[in-house]
Amino acid sequence: MTPATSLDSLLRVLPEGRVVTDPDVTDSYARDRTFLTPGRALGVVLARTRDDVVATMRWATEHRVPVVPRGAGTGLAGGATAVEGGLLLSLARMTDIRELSPADEIAVVEPGVINADLDRAARAHGLMYAPDPSSYEISTIGGNLATNAGGLRCVKYGVTRDSTLGLEVVLPDGRVLNTGRRTVKGVTGYDLTGLFVGSEGTLGVITAATVRLQRAPAAPPATVAAEFPTLRQAAEAVAAVIAAGCRPSLLELLDRATLKAIDDWRNIGLDPDTAAMLIAQSDTPDGQAVAERMAALFDECGASFVAASSTPQEADELIGVRRMAYEAKERLGACLVEDVCVPRSRLPEMISAIEAAAVRHDVLICTVAHAGDGNLHPVFVFDHGLPEPPPQVWAAADEVFRAALDLGGTLTGEHGVGLLKRRWLDLETGPVGREVQLGIKQVFDPLGIMNPGKAIQN
Amino acid sequence: MTPATSLDSLLRVLPEGRVVTDPDVTDSYARDRTFLTPGRALGVVLARTRDDVVATMRWATEHRVPVVPRGAGTGLAGGATAVEGGLLLSLARMTDIRELSPADEIAVVEPGVINADLDRAARAHGLMYAPDPSSYEISTIGGNLATNAGGLRCVKYGVTRDSTLGLEVVLPDGRVLNTGRRTVKGVTGYDLTGLFVGSEGTLGVITAATVRLQRAPAAPPATVAAEFPTLRQAAEAVAAVIAAGCRPSLLELLDRATLKAIDDWRNIGLDPDTAAMLIAQSDTPDGQAVAERMAALFDECGASFVAASSTPQEADELIGVRRMAYEAKERLGACLVEDVCVPRSRLPEMISAIEAAAVRHDVLICTVAHAGDGNLHPVFVFDHGLPEPPPQVWAAADEVFRAALDLGGTLTGEHGVGLLKRRWLDLETGPVGREVQLGIKQVFDPLGIMNPGKAIQN
Repeated sequence: MTPATSLDSLLRVLPEGRVVTDPDVTDSYARDRTFLTPGRALGVVLARTRDDVVATMRWATEHRVPVVPRGAGTGLAGGATAVEGGLLLSLARMTDIRELSPADEIAVVEPGVINADLDRAARAHGLMYAPDPSSYEISTIGGNLATNAGGLRCVKYGVTRDSTLGLEVVLPDGRVLNTGRRTVKGVTGYDLTGLFVGSEGTLGVITAATVRLQRAPAAPPATVAAEFPTLRQAAEAVAAVIAAGCRPSLLELLDRATLKAIDDWRNIGLDPDTAAMLIAQSDTPDGQAVAERMAALFDECGASFVAASSTPQEADELIGVRRMAYEAKERLGACLVEDVCVPRSRLPEMISAIEAAAVRHDVLICTVAHAGDGNLHPVFVFDHGLPEPPPQVWAAADEVFRAALDLGGTLTGEHGVGLLKRRWLDLETGPVGREVQLGIKQVFDPLGIMNPGKAIQN
Repeated sequence: MTPATSLDSLLRVLPEGRVVTDPDVTDSYARDRTFLTPGRALGVVLARTRDDVVATMRWATEHRVPVVPRGAGTGLAGGATAVEGGLLLSLARMTDIRELSPADEIAVVEPGVINADLDRAARAHGLMYAPDPSSYEISTIGGNLATNAGGLRCVKYGVTRDSTLGLEVVLPDGRVLNTGRRTVKGVTGYDLTGLFVGSEGTLGVITAATVRLQRAPAAPPATVAAEFPTLRQAAEAVAAVIAAGCRPSLLELLDRATLKAIDDWRNIGLDPDTAAMLIAQSDTPDGQAVAERMAALFDECGASFVAASSTPQEADELIGVRRMAYEAKERLGACLVEDVCVPRSRLPEMISAIEAAAVRHDVLICTVAHAGDGNLHPVFVFDHGLPEPPPQVWAAADEVFRAALDLGGTLTGEHGVGLLKRRWLDLETGPVGREVQLGIKQVFDPLGIMNPGKAIQN
């Protein structure tokens, strides 16, 4: 098979304009948000309909061509980067919200719908789409499904899988599989919906999802922020907020290195003795009272400074510090963004382990955490000029991953395994888990053409 | 192989007292709560440890003997009934709560733990185990996991799968698989935990579960009940409560036939013009105000009678009517209990379809519904003297199942497929779904020894 021939036959089965082979264009579909160098793709299919996906997958099966499904390419683990000699299958143009039922609090959406667009459509009916990864203004529902995306709100409202009721999937051979249902409960057959959520494009191509919407809070959330002289006190404050039943709708932690990066950039007046900042929100009808209660708990736990918002503008300023975190780090260098998650009670130990790894390997690591979930994003900063992280960064990352697993945690809370975490995968999965996972992969993708080399693979 | 020989070899690998072959004893482990006549079992293994289960499954694989795992036998679909020539594997004696961490809001429990015992253990720490099937005082966590059990609270707090973070499973060949994690988020590998929840003992034997606990409400719930002259008005009231964002912690509907059965038994002073009753609870700190709001909505939707509790005793009286439902029906005859679930907006159509089927086939059907979830339990009553439902009951059930599927619903919301719903399974799953499901079954149980004939099977 020569690539040229095979793409000719693909062009014949797809409507005009669906296939692009111009390298200037295909290159823009070859990467995600990591530093990873993609392989050279045969071309990009810009699918507009399920039938486009069916035709593409039939062709790919016939010609044994690897396919990498992708949304907006905002991934942080290499899950959507091009595979050498493979086809990129973009779902970004499948942007229909096929249905939105306020009565049943569900929507049926195509994979290219931007997360925030679905949320806005729901808000018009007093509802919301709860999962809100930081990329929510640019990432697609399809990508969110592929990685089981979390976000800031998921401490209260759950992750993508919790909001997914059913899927329409095109299997590698072009057959269409409908999983799940439109109801909130159901136990007919194995949970194929849950299996596809978080499968990182390795089992099939999601062409529609039936998702659950939730009541949107009536008022904007009340916000409180606090600075702590030690990490342990901040972690104790997190535990105190949870134990008091405050049910925050957001509970974020920023470590000293992150705060310093933000302060160096935007001069937020950081006290040099601050080891960590917590930002919390409550979106209940009595949110202001809950925020005050959280502020009192922060104070009791030894906060050196506590600020509660009394206006939406003040809330925006407090939460704005969190929003600056990633950009502040990117100014310092190239970033390896990690995503370990530990039981909440192990948060201080995990942060200590990250700090120890940073010192031992002389690597700058800035950490923000979805503290209420125990989900940490240590960002390993390295020289912009390097094509990939230097050995000391990988050595530090290796320590961080092993520490997370030792603490009863996981390699990835919400970003996926992709390419970046494959070498640690077996440490978490174990040999029996690995064998079973590969068996499942084989059921759906016996030819191994779905996103080869990513996540679960031989 | 003669059964006697093979059990000798099983006796040798298990500690004394684990295997029972006395038919008087094995018979008590052969049934669930359905009318189904079980097959004759070789014997019962009363497992006390994971190693007992490992030894049993190794033996079963070596000798190709079918195994039916079971908890308390409270199932309503035939999932735990004995298979001819098979072994019953009771997990009811594995009753350890291995760990309960208030800080991480998780527990690690063995499958024989009674649902209510886990809930009580959690409540000692201000937490609760949310899933509460009606059988919660007698059913086990293992059985709840096998059927992805729901319950009354799940309208607010989710079903069993939503509370399950990780599992320890013994595979059919005796290997031990650990799935999931101790963290609330995680996306390493395919969601094997979700796959096992609801798999009805067809993939392996769950020997421990890491479950999520939730904050228990501070006060007892506030309760409101209302009677409606038409089903449509009751259904409108359900929609109004949801649309108003009341987030009830319980929202139950009883139809006329159920109310009549209760009234005939206990004389609750039923108005003969009542077509349906709704019972709702709110467990928020302002629950009394929410209950009053729901009462006002019931009134606006045309309720003929509304009662709100102002004391826990009054609340118990209102909710007591719901608790009498099943027993009242069992007094009328043998029961085929069904479990369809439809999108909430289709609730009135589903109830109408049930009423039409009852009339057309001259069958008494009494329905209660977890109305907030769209989950209905039509109970088909037939003569106590019959060994199984007569043809007109099956004909009516067939109509009910097809109506549920036509309305975008599912055969089973929380009871499982078991034996009773197998003949309708393909209508919901479709041929591609069926093939994929069988492929997954094959990965875990290539010899087909796990609970053969139940749920997903060739």
